[in-house]
Amino acid sequence: MNSSKVDTVITGARYVLSCDEARTLHENCGVAIRDGRIVAVGDVDSLSADVTIDARGCIVLPGLINLHTHLPMTLLRGVAENVDLQGFLERVWAEEARIMGPEGTYVGARLGALEALLGGTTTALDMYFHPEAAHRGAVEAGIRHVIGPVYFDFPGPDGLEWDQRLELTERWPSILQEIGGPYVPPFLMPHSPLIVNPEHLRDLDAIAQRMGARIHTHNSENDKENDATIAAHGDRPTALLRESGLLDERTVLAHCVRLDDDDRAAIAAGGSSVAHNPGSNLKLASGAMDLVGYRDQGIRVGLGTDGCSSSNDLDMFAVLRLAANLARLAHLDPAAISAEDIVRAATIDGAAAIGMADRIGSIEVGKEADLIVVDTAVPHLTPLHDPYTALVFAAGRSDVRDVFVAGEHVISERSPKRVDAAEVMATAQAHVGGE
Amino acid sequence: MNSSKVDTVITGARYVLSCDEARTLHENCGVAIRDGRIVAVGDVDSLSADVTIDARGCIVLPGLINLHTHLPMTLLRGVAENVDLQGFLERVWAEEARIMGPEGTYVGARLGALEALLGGTTTALDMYFHPEAAHRGAVEAGIRHVIGPVYFDFPGPDGLEWDQRLELTERWPSILQEIGGPYVPPFLMPHSPLIVNPEHLRDLDAIAQRMGARIHTHNSENDKENDATIAAHGDRPTALLRESGLLDERTVLAHCVRLDDDDRAAIAAGGSSVAHNPGSNLKLASGAMDLVGYRDQGIRVGLGTDGCSSSNDLDMFAVLRLAANLARLAHLDPAAISAEDIVRAATIDGAAAIGMADRIGSIEVGKEADLIVVDTAVPHLTPLHDPYTALVFAAGRSDVRDVFVAGEHVISERSPKRVDAAEVMATAQAHVGGE
Repeated sequence: MNSSKVDTVITGARYVLSCDEARTLHENCGVAIRDGRIVAVGDVDSLSADVTIDARGCIVLPGLINLHTHLPMTLLRGVAENVDLQGFLERVWAEEARIMGPEGTYVGARLGALEALLGGTTTALDMYFHPEAAHRGAVEAGIRHVIGPVYFDFPGPDGLEWDQRLELTERWPSILQEIGGPYVPPFLMPHSPLIVNPEHLRDLDAIAQRMGARIHTHNSENDKENDATIAAHGDRPTALLRESGLLDERTVLAHCVRLDDDDRAAIAAGGSSVAHNPGSNLKLASGAMDLVGYRDQGIRVGLGTDGCSSSNDLDMFAVLRLAANLARLAHLDPAAISAEDIVRAATIDGAAAIGMADRIGSIEVGKEADLIVVDTAVPHLTPLHDPYTALVFAAGRSDVRDVFVAGEHVISERSPKRVDAAEVMATAQAHVGGE
Repeated sequence: MNSSKVDTVITGARYVLSCDEARTLHENCGVAIRDGRIVAVGDVDSLSADVTIDARGCIVLPGLINLHTHLPMTLLRGVAENVDLQGFLERVWAEEARIMGPEGTYVGARLGALEALLGGTTTALDMYFHPEAAHRGAVEAGIRHVIGPVYFDFPGPDGLEWDQRLELTERWPSILQEIGGPYVPPFLMPHSPLIVNPEHLRDLDAIAQRMGARIHTHNSENDKENDATIAAHGDRPTALLRESGLLDERTVLAHCVRLDDDDRAAIAAGGSSVAHNPGSNLKLASGAMDLVGYRDQGIRVGLGTDGCSSSNDLDMFAVLRLAANLARLAHLDPAAISAEDIVRAATIDGAAAIGMADRIGSIEVGKEADLIVVDTAVPHLTPLHDPYTALVFAAGRSDVRDVFVAGEHVISERSPKRVDAAEVMATAQAHVGGE
């Protein structure tokens, strides 16, 4: 790098996990940031910087990418317990009608983004009604917030007719530009092949092709969803997506718990990515997705929390651990997947899934500086033999000390710098009612 | 209660979860403590106290009971990864020979006890060599530490012959008395029916009967262990325990992942309790214990972490969540077990398992004051609809703010009052080597 002054240096880290293609593990070094990008990884002690972060005793790694969530539904945390997906949706929809207009969406997304950032998540692939309101709330908190218009065949809680959804779609790129925040690609988000009919799916394919937009949808979360889709549209969800043209590398499929062999082969052939949400899938008793089997078949798998109404939080560290343990159970193999591959699933693989592997997901010179600093000077991380094992099987969200998104220091010493946490919580509680 | 001064009042709690038989949930009230015992639950604002703890916005619940762990093995965190139980034991035994003498045992137990307390665990059922050294370390940190002599047919890492183990057994009650600390019953801890032959198991039954001691052992952790036990002693582990007389209510059986119908019926008939360690069982790919099935059959089940060499931490909140989720997966039923029953498994059921339900495990007048204060004023617990759901599915160890053991305030505002955390960690790291 050239020797001119940088904005921030992170110095003395015990480990820097690059998550690059060579799987480089740096020890006892640092990272330098200028104009939102990483400009050096290694010996940065001699650089002049406006801000110096002392990372002695810390692990620095790419910010976690939550590949499927519904941030505004943080307001609905715990409203539907001990029910399956269908019972869950019934209860949630009633509550959404009550409190989840544009204002509730903004308030919930801001709260969810704050929770996510405090736990080390720097990017969220989010899906919700009122995407403009959600985006304003999430960007205000400082997260890299990937969202777009959501599609139902019928008016959802947002009351929009199909044509109104298409009208919002045309305006979406300019809305993203107006709100600002860290760069994200445009996304279109059909809820699922159950709720968006094949003709509408084909229309969305054409629109997405024209706009250069990417796709996020739910797919085969449980058996009832598969059965209902077959009953409504004559085929399984994955087949409907393939027939519509959507089953390609643009697309992130949430859940995919109940795929058959044909579904898996179609996804592998098409190049879509899968968002694995083990906490939500177990809690709703949908089943256990076969992370290792999908990977072995060539399907890219990232990790997500799902929304707080089902999961019930946005704790990606809990997801790392559960995904690793569930893979071991599913294959009865304690080496089913390495801790390092779990960390990669939540970083570089998630970045690739949303088409951003050239910008984020690893700590390499030239990338945008989305990274987190994890403090290991705590009893539960002592002693520490291997940083990947420590992160997956012993660390937790509370060990995240500092968070950078596009070079901005959004969480410092476990406190948010862009919003007032007490105000964010109080506003959320007031909107829900009570206290 | 009489109106004389108390030692401590905890005031203004949002919820106090009694975990009593009536499942009483108190709201907006407090707890008073005198001479180590709970003397009031309810309106305590008028009491005069030496110390007042402001618990506004907090949940107060009984301290968590970790029903199976190996605290000294905290020093071996992460030394054996991607291996099953047998591969794990090989690696761990080599490392134990290197560093786990009495000094290492003391150092590791002290570190483990500190980690456990910071995460809301007030009682640990611990098993390790050099139990005297382990007990000194754990009691120093302030935990209620249940341990006793461990038995192998052959000299283990401690080098003791069988007769020497029996000699230690006779001295154990006086050792407990000499070390002091919160009351715990005497325990004898045969490692497993694989490693302790039937004749020795019968001898231990007689000794335990004479001493009034309780029993802790491993049982049917995986299929290989069952097979090896049959090959060595001609029967399955549970059958060997039953034939020795040990399969009664005195006994806590760790793991029980691979029981057959006869094993389950024998445990239910005998009244022994089971310690469920889902994190360790999944990580070592031993399998998923059927928590709900065992409960339905009348078997008492508590929760544990196992040792840090397999689990890899002592996070009981992670265990609460995993146990709840795993039960939902095993039965494909989102109502397989309630969050409240999961909390009870980790409190009153654990207390009953170790024969201490008359002293700890619930917040009731007359019981010893083992309780924890969980701060809910954080984004990931906002909003909060039900305290049990919040604790199991969204809270974490870092939300534990204050911890009391037998009335002593051992963790205050997330910091230990009896030991210096930095010194405990540095001593542990130095003993392991490196840094």
